[in-house]
Amino acid sequence: MELQAIGVQHPAVRQVQHIQNNTAPNRYKLFVAEGLWAHNMLLESGAPIDTFFWCPEAIYADEAHKRAEEIAERAERSFRISLRTLEKISERDKPDGLLSLAALPRWDERDIRFGKTALILVADGLEIPGNLGTLIRSLDACGADALVLTNRKTRLTHPKVIRASQGTILTVPTLEYETVDAAVAWLESQRFSVLLADTDEAVNYRQADYSGRTALVVGSERYGIAKGWYGHGYQRVAVPMLGSGDSLNVSVSASILLYEAQARKSSW
Amino acid sequence: MELQAIGVQHPAVRQVQHIQNNTAPNRYKLFVAEGLWAHNMLLESGAPIDTFFWCPEAIYADEAHKRAEEIAERAERSFRISLRTLEKISERDKPDGLLSLAALPRWDERDIRFGKTALILVADGLEIPGNLGTLIRSLDACGADALVLTNRKTRLTHPKVIRASQGTILTVPTLEYETVDAAVAWLESQRFSVLLADTDEAVNYRQADYSGRTALVVGSERYGIAKGWYGHGYQRVAVPMLGSGDSLNVSVSASILLYEAQARKSSW
Repeated sequence: MELQAIGVQHPAVRQVQHIQNNTAPNRYKLFVAEGLWAHNMLLESGAPIDTFFWCPEAIYADEAHKRAEEIAERAERSFRISLRTLEKISERDKPDGLLSLAALPRWDERDIRFGKTALILVADGLEIPGNLGTLIRSLDACGADALVLTNRKTRLTHPKVIRASQGTILTVPTLEYETVDAAVAWLESQRFSVLLADTDEAVNYRQADYSGRTALVVGSERYGIAKGWYGHGYQRVAVPMLGSGDSLNVSVSASILLYEAQARKSSW
Repeated sequence: MELQAIGVQHPAVRQVQHIQNNTAPNRYKLFVAEGLWAHNMLLESGAPIDTFFWCPEAIYADEAHKRAEEIAERAERSFRISLRTLEKISERDKPDGLLSLAALPRWDERDIRFGKTALILVADGLEIPGNLGTLIRSLDACGADALVLTNRKTRLTHPKVIRASQGTILTVPTLEYETVDAAVAWLESQRFSVLLADTDEAVNYRQADYSGRTALVVGSERYGIAKGWYGHGYQRVAVPMLGSGDSLNVSVSASILLYEAQARKSSW
């Protein structure tokens, strides 16, 4: 395969660095995909590939050589880079010769059709990218319908979100609302019953009502759910805390609630 | 408070660096506790404090000034260090003037008495420290009786294990077995029913039998459960995977299974 060779000064290389470090606007929601596994995921999901960087010297798997041609065919533009350039833009210890800028899907609330027993999760103010990515992986696994973000503190294109989501960020529909009020108005227009994950004045999550459409709300690692979610009469549900600690990891507690809701909806 | 001032060359400072980087044997299972929150946890749990390092210039909370005296009283030895030395041994961005070497409790299988419906988790070959710490936090939260480690790949004293456990590592009993056979023999002598978390030939986790004493086994992030656990006729249980991914984060799936088991044992 013959591709134009570029160096570290090329604007495309700089763009990767800006995306990794979040040092420039990113209105097309570009993210960096690295390695064979991530590129297989891009090919399978049909996600648009903006720029492909190929470093044949760093490829160690036969399969990666084959994939490189498929990726170059799918990408808007493709370049060949040196080992030295690859090391500048890779976040990995041993980068493996395939690196791309690809775009996350952009979802609109009108794109998503909900069934009678739909299940969604609202993540309010989550701060740690790994938690958000892990949560998205759980949403995919339990067959939930969407993730809603309010008071967003971490970007979906963060390399740790992408990695922890194990690629499921390409398939789980995600909506973001500027204000809690806007999210509440939309949830009510869609006839979702909202349950707040909160240990105060809560019912045990095994006793809660998951009939109809359910929206579970979880809050930030440090501060919990934002004030705006209270005062609407929403039921609070709690996962019992029986030890010396006072909380679970937020992606763990969200996953326990999601699976409980889905099990009850599906009568597993 | 007057304490002996020491610098970066002092053996106690070097010891902290060895513990952080795992570059020396650590037979007393020492770990590094940093900051007010971690020290409150040490004081509450009664964990033995080996060495306390105090840097008053870096303390910004009034409470930390008060705690410093209590910690110095509890510690085997206490030193005053400079900001520069603190920065050398701290793993934090903004260390807050309290740093200690403390010892994890050492558990023996004879120390632990199990009730009729005891619940334990076996973590086989887990590789990522954050996952192990998060798992310990969940064991504490659901009131499980112990964590058993086989094919251990990450040390319990790893800073990320301590942090992700949110201090619950000081209270959750932990046992380690050199071989899977030794763990199996002990579990059978204690009349535990063993359930393997595995999607192949498995029953849905909502349909599994959690009566009596239950030991749940989860495997490594990449390879699953080691061979030695199979061939004993243990039932396999699976959390349904309904999306595009093929697995959950291991601390998430373990937590879902732990809470299901505990909910069924306790009839929540």
